[in-house]
Amino acid sequence: MDYKKIAAEKHAEWKGKIEIKVRCPIETPDDLSIAYTPGVAEPCLMIKAEPDRVWDLTAKHNTVAVITDGTAVLGLGNIGGVAGMPVMEGKCVLFKEFGGVDAIPLCVSALSPDEVVKAISMFADSFGGINLEDIGAPRCFEIEEKLKKVTNIPIFHDDQHGTAVVVLSGIRNALKLTGKKAEESKVIMSGAGAAGTAIARLLLKAGFKDITLCDINGIVNKENNYADPYLQSLAEVTNPRGLKGTLKDGVKGADIFIGVSAPNLLTEEMIKSMNTDPIIFAMANPVPEVMPDVALKAGAKVVATGRSDYPNQINNVLAFPGIFRGALDVRASDINEEMKLAAADAISALVSEEDLKNGIIIPSAFNKSMSKNIAAAVAEAARKSGVARI
Amino acid sequence: MDYKKIAAEKHAEWKGKIEIKVRCPIETPDDLSIAYTPGVAEPCLMIKAEPDRVWDLTAKHNTVAVITDGTAVLGLGNIGGVAGMPVMEGKCVLFKEFGGVDAIPLCVSALSPDEVVKAISMFADSFGGINLEDIGAPRCFEIEEKLKKVTNIPIFHDDQHGTAVVVLSGIRNALKLTGKKAEESKVIMSGAGAAGTAIARLLLKAGFKDITLCDINGIVNKENNYADPYLQSLAEVTNPRGLKGTLKDGVKGADIFIGVSAPNLLTEEMIKSMNTDPIIFAMANPVPEVMPDVALKAGAKVVATGRSDYPNQINNVLAFPGIFRGALDVRASDINEEMKLAAADAISALVSEEDLKNGIIIPSAFNKSMSKNIAAAVAEAARKSGVARI
Repeated sequence: MDYKKIAAEKHAEWKGKIEIKVRCPIETPDDLSIAYTPGVAEPCLMIKAEPDRVWDLTAKHNTVAVITDGTAVLGLGNIGGVAGMPVMEGKCVLFKEFGGVDAIPLCVSALSPDEVVKAISMFADSFGGINLEDIGAPRCFEIEEKLKKVTNIPIFHDDQHGTAVVVLSGIRNALKLTGKKAEESKVIMSGAGAAGTAIARLLLKAGFKDITLCDINGIVNKENNYADPYLQSLAEVTNPRGLKGTLKDGVKGADIFIGVSAPNLLTEEMIKSMNTDPIIFAMANPVPEVMPDVALKAGAKVVATGRSDYPNQINNVLAFPGIFRGALDVRASDINEEMKLAAADAISALVSEEDLKNGIIIPSAFNKSMSKNIAAAVAEAARKSGVARI
Repeated sequence: MDYKKIAAEKHAEWKGKIEIKVRCPIETPDDLSIAYTPGVAEPCLMIKAEPDRVWDLTAKHNTVAVITDGTAVLGLGNIGGVAGMPVMEGKCVLFKEFGGVDAIPLCVSALSPDEVVKAISMFADSFGGINLEDIGAPRCFEIEEKLKKVTNIPIFHDDQHGTAVVVLSGIRNALKLTGKKAEESKVIMSGAGAAGTAIARLLLKAGFKDITLCDINGIVNKENNYADPYLQSLAEVTNPRGLKGTLKDGVKGADIFIGVSAPNLLTEEMIKSMNTDPIIFAMANPVPEVMPDVALKAGAKVVATGRSDYPNQINNVLAFPGIFRGALDVRASDINEEMKLAAADAISALVSEEDLKNGIIIPSAFNKSMSKNIAAAVAEAARKSGVARI
């Protein structure tokens, strides 16, 4: 199916994938006087007296802003926020369909990270959470970090953390298949951008000890003293064996390959140089670091990609609707590491023993229990980690 | 009916007066691939190549942001943006119900006007128009003026212009009743804030020549050399006879009184000092400058207030849904004076000859033809004045 051609036609037909629906009656002058003036003064004064009541008396408790600056839209690069709006609307569709979350698509000018932080923070009280989307590295790290400090609602850059959660959920199931343990597995990653950084950090939180990243300049090693403070900080907690060289060097003896980089970087020969039962996550889009059939032929035990036409698609829609559903359900002030780990476990648990035996490590995006299960796990983790308001 | 009590209960029950509705099917993996990745890349690239296509391929063409900084919410004063959110949601309900417009409620921190302008402008590409709401004077003038300069979509502070349009529509019908002409009528206004300023300026555009404003310090006269540049600028185009003194002095001999100020400022005696067949618009809320029965007893030919329990309620819902409907229909870059005048004429025209004979000068808010008629007039005015994109 020619998705692009159909998408162009359908988007021109839809003229917007979402709209506003009114939830209160407006049939009579009395209705007007209750939903609007003069009656509406009362909930306003109640919120003025007790600001947290905005969560009860308005849609804030179920509203998420989906915000991009357009600096890294899909795999299209810095195409600008306006051109990214079809993606933002699509994300809002998924939020509603898969999580029951009311999401609002917004694009913000890609000015300096500080200006973006200031603008978003000035509007933050309008929402119950903020999903940052398609923001390039390293600005995404700075924007998210600073926004978290100045707001009291979850700030979640999905390209980083949604991807990391789904990858971790798949890796956990893959390890069950191979019988290996997280803390004993060697992980080599290709790509140290937004997604790569978040995956590495979440795997560390999940108990992995030996993770090495490789970017366009070769293996990431703290001795390189990177100018980018985010990369240097990552270098200091990864590559414990002090590896140097290229991806080829890093892959040797590794148990797990995770690619969030570019097409065809991983060869058959390189896979053969890995430890027994190698696990391959090749997520470059649309062409992965290695095609699944090539990887399996070279001895891979299990393969995941970003593609919908192969099994085990790493798809963020598995994670973000349930994660925000859970965060909103407890009016969380943050989506923290504990909540992400809980989400990954909940996703892993949705793969049946039988599917697992057949090499399926990722559940279907249309699994109806998913968002509910993830939300429950995330809400519990929020409560335990002290970020739940209710 | 105790609107406040019921509103408090209903708002707690509704927990949000609006929600998001999905307009595209998401039933199968193919649906996902068309509304989201990989298909959605195509409309993104089409917009990247030709930015104006965002009007065709996303919901921008029907989306308005309703934004407050909470500095003048209803008659409650500066209660903050968060406490103003029930009003913003209510406004979004009215936008949808009366104009078919998808409106998004947003509150922005009440920082300096320049900071507010910067933050709003950074998000402006997300919308087809911006309805500013409940922003106090004089900051509302500066914010609107500067936003108009840095954006290419309509910026409309409804507290100013929506009120002015409805007042003008009512005044036009009132003049039909009295047989007087705009250019020969003397207008005295009580209140020179956001609404007062906009009303005075629109009346001048509509052909009125003799308008005098009075604020808490007395009659506004350019010789006073006001520190507030907006007030001084207004002083220079009003009060052509150079009146001085108090409201009582200004009212003498006037044909029309327009109050957007405070309760009970206009006495029976003052009305008796006006010209024959005086027209009284007493819009202070909830208690007007003079109660309608008092005004009629004192000789008023026609009375309008802001109250729903008397005839001739000056209610902004008569204007803003149709005005934005018309502006969006032609993808206008502005809502200019010509469009406001056209809206006022369209509203006036909705009052039947028979109603007019009975002293009805304002149509019912539930007149189903209203928004459509206003939109058509506004769209035509936009085309004629060169601000329509299509």
